[in-house]
Amino acid sequence: MPLISIIEDFHPKNDAKLLGRAEELKPVLHHTIVEPKGGFVLKERYSAEEDEIVLQDLDQLPLGKGQNLCLDFGDHYVGRVTLNLAFKGSHPDAPAFLKLKFCETRKELSENSSDYDGWISDSWIQEEYVHVDELPCTLSLPRRYAFRYMKITILDTSPKYKLIIRSAELVHETSAGELKKPLKKTGDAMLDRIQEVSLRTLANCMQEVFEDGPKRDRRLWMGDLRLQALVNYESFKNYDLVKRCLYLFAGTRFPEGKVSACVFTGNGAEADDTWLFDYSLFFVCALEEYLQETDDMEALEDLYECAMEQMDIARSLCDETGLLKKEAVENTFIDWREGLDKAACAQAVLAYTIPYAVSLALWKKDQETADRLSGFLARVKEAARAVYWNEEEQCFISNGQKSLASQVWMVLAEVVSGEEAVSLMKRSEEFNGSVRMLTPYMHHYYVSALLKCGLKKEAFDHIREYWGGMVKMGADTFWESYDDENPEVSPYGGKVIDSFCHAWSCTPLYLISQYMEENDNEKAGF
Amino acid sequence: MPLISIIEDFHPKNDAKLLGRAEELKPVLHHTIVEPKGGFVLKERYSAEEDEIVLQDLDQLPLGKGQNLCLDFGDHYVGRVTLNLAFKGSHPDAPAFLKLKFCETRKELSENSSDYDGWISDSWIQEEYVHVDELPCTLSLPRRYAFRYMKITILDTSPKYKLIIRSAELVHETSAGELKKPLKKTGDAMLDRIQEVSLRTLANCMQEVFEDGPKRDRRLWMGDLRLQALVNYESFKNYDLVKRCLYLFAGTRFPEGKVSACVFTGNGAEADDTWLFDYSLFFVCALEEYLQETDDMEALEDLYECAMEQMDIARSLCDETGLLKKEAVENTFIDWREGLDKAACAQAVLAYTIPYAVSLALWKKDQETADRLSGFLARVKEAARAVYWNEEEQCFISNGQKSLASQVWMVLAEVVSGEEAVSLMKRSEEFNGSVRMLTPYMHHYYVSALLKCGLKKEAFDHIREYWGGMVKMGADTFWESYDDENPEVSPYGGKVIDSFCHAWSCTPLYLISQYMEENDNEKAGF
Repeated sequence: MPLISIIEDFHPKNDAKLLGRAEELKPVLHHTIVEPKGGFVLKERYSAEEDEIVLQDLDQLPLGKGQNLCLDFGDHYVGRVTLNLAFKGSHPDAPAFLKLKFCETRKELSENSSDYDGWISDSWIQEEYVHVDELPCTLSLPRRYAFRYMKITILDTSPKYKLIIRSAELVHETSAGELKKPLKKTGDAMLDRIQEVSLRTLANCMQEVFEDGPKRDRRLWMGDLRLQALVNYESFKNYDLVKRCLYLFAGTRFPEGKVSACVFTGNGAEADDTWLFDYSLFFVCALEEYLQETDDMEALEDLYECAMEQMDIARSLCDETGLLKKEAVENTFIDWREGLDKAACAQAVLAYTIPYAVSLALWKKDQETADRLSGFLARVKEAARAVYWNEEEQCFISNGQKSLASQVWMVLAEVVSGEEAVSLMKRSEEFNGSVRMLTPYMHHYYVSALLKCGLKKEAFDHIREYWGGMVKMGADTFWESYDDENPEVSPYGGKVIDSFCHAWSCTPLYLISQYMEENDNEKAGF
Repeated sequence: MPLISIIEDFHPKNDAKLLGRAEELKPVLHHTIVEPKGGFVLKERYSAEEDEIVLQDLDQLPLGKGQNLCLDFGDHYVGRVTLNLAFKGSHPDAPAFLKLKFCETRKELSENSSDYDGWISDSWIQEEYVHVDELPCTLSLPRRYAFRYMKITILDTSPKYKLIIRSAELVHETSAGELKKPLKKTGDAMLDRIQEVSLRTLANCMQEVFEDGPKRDRRLWMGDLRLQALVNYESFKNYDLVKRCLYLFAGTRFPEGKVSACVFTGNGAEADDTWLFDYSLFFVCALEEYLQETDDMEALEDLYECAMEQMDIARSLCDETGLLKKEAVENTFIDWREGLDKAACAQAVLAYTIPYAVSLALWKKDQETADRLSGFLARVKEAARAVYWNEEEQCFISNGQKSLASQVWMVLAEVVSGEEAVSLMKRSEEFNGSVRMLTPYMHHYYVSALLKCGLKKEAFDHIREYWGGMVKMGADTFWESYDDENPEVSPYGGKVIDSFCHAWSCTPLYLISQYMEENDNEKAGF
């Protein structure tokens, strides 16, 4: 179980003006009514064997105690469900008692979630127990679910009647809106499919904020937002939603000004008491990228101070040589893989983000700050090289550990460049060993590093293999974590709690859109 | 498992006029807000050991995964619950997942209801699983429960926070209204308490109809209604509710005119496809008793035909000697005790009810019908005596079985009378053997038979012992079934499904009110 941040008596500092602006930018959700595309019953309650059903015959399918019905809505959706229930037999003389389970993947249907014993709350499992007192009736479930499949198990009716599930309907919700930029035609079926799955992943995470995943957490995380925004610029171009999220992060912060890793928005905006060093710095990147895209000077005016404060806090966490102290390293995310030593990565992330801050300062015509930051950058990079580069092994070593994550971040931060960087990235396989990359989030930065080194073929091959691996396993949306050598590994002690629509995994769309030219596929023989 | 009546393609015959009148008579429910009187936690989830809690300290009692809180509302209530929920710790980062259990008796709190494997639907067990997405919040549960105790088990929160149950409130519902006749002062503490418990039992079953029990079934049964009405005349005198229920029974019937054993009223009135011979005849008694009480000539006009039709149907079920055929006997209730032979009972019930029909006919000035019924009665009684009386054993024997139920009903039907009847009832113990009476419903008729024979001391002693036994076991309301020699016996294969507030058990109030004189207690040295 990873370290969980709990701060006693945490009182985040809220800025009414910024939060007010965020509220004004709250999107309208678009609703679409969706009906199931197919149905089947599991031969046993947790069996993987199925009997197909013709949906038109649902009216003729009385379900008794212990029986189940699975509905397949044909794609991944986020929304609320209404069931039209009737009965067959005598007038119901007892309530119907149902268990409803919502699954993002088909495999989950036959898993018994009570087997889960991981460290994340069971309460995220999308299961409900419902009593229906009167039949026939329309049963509208108030909670929102993320799913493609819905399993209805009849826990009991009575010996006098059976339940009929006449029909089901889901109202899909998203704030994504229209696609404003067509997907790139890559000439490669798998890459095209990967783009589609990326797009759906992003759209289904676009709700009242950019959610990390619509099944679990369902909230705004800074590291995720940065990547979601990049993909959004290549697709829906929903700028207001990005702006709203940046204002939410700036509008509720740690008392000392830190941007929280995550903001709750359910009962009013409130910073989580979790601070992640790398995530706080991505606020700077996300703001700079937003400005590049929009030239929105109001946002610059309102959010500049917050961005610079993150830099000041980072500087206060370095010693005089520019080397990050333990406090920052211990609160750095990078990837979910346990055992990853994050010292080199954290140092590199800092170096990676400072140029974004410099750019912001120049935008703000704040040359003094730009100069100060450039000086800081030089020190941070020097320290990175001095402490983590191993001349003999010709790679970065973080407290004795040669992880791919360390190499990736050092390349992205330009602590190495040119042939040295290319040669490092070509040795990827060597570094991706015991602390193998686990999340698509980390894989995104890996591909970015390949592209930075001009290794286009390797980059797109990796997308095709890694994200394509999920596609081959039937993904309608990309997953929170995926180890292509061991797909059963979950960072949470059980796959049942994993999110199978997780926005940090949707970046292939951005990577293809930004880095692939129309005829790359032919040129390189990808 | 008893025979369950299931009729394929059952189309009850509804009378719009009668059902319209029933609708007009629908009572207003009175609501009272009730707060818990005490609280405790079970040391383990199903432990009987408790730790007391001061309710004022609930705010200071954070509950984590696996912990529980039990609230005691101080008496049996029927209604809906609202919880005021908060949290302690970090901002909740996962839903709270709760199991709520509503119990009529304290013992149920420590029972694991998943152990139940009887023939009645599990869906009656008053348990809910609830996800709470946002905290703090007010959680209003939509369903109605019958309970004194509420157990809240925290299935999960998250490692970051614990749940606080700030307060709970229940809105009690009943249509009983004001007490119109004070309870009799018996001078006997136990009989006084029995009257109070009877009154509460009745009141909590008085909802939009006279329900059999507010926990399970929750609907109108004819055999139950007859007894409820009698107690109601000695207490709330809510005549409209009795009238409404009689109109409901007459307004929806079997196609051939039979009064159903039970009427559903949830989605519009509809007869259950269950016909019980004895229950259908009690419609006649209940109407006659209602008229005795109210002189309501509208009811006589509207319901006379239905009452007479039950008699006609009964006659058609007899052979020419007046002996009931198998069809009637097989559909007779009498008591829940398995193995009871019901032939003699059914014959006696018919003889018992005909005089009520005669009385109705006279009321209606329908002398011809009265004469015809009197002739029928003579035949029925003769057949009863001829077939079931055993001269040698000086008792009634039903297919070889000497049950107390048979003797009771023959006495009530006056198939025996005078010294012969008294002597039979004095031998009660001898007859109450292997097919021992199980329900308070049967015990009511037993006490009635004792009183009919002038055995007042025996009658009130039995009330004191049998109903007093439930009081001594902590009953706030009287139970659906109670075997004083084996309190764990349930007619449903498990006590967890039993109803502990069941109106057919509330008759001691009527029996005391009708048959006890103010100074009986002293006179008889009871």
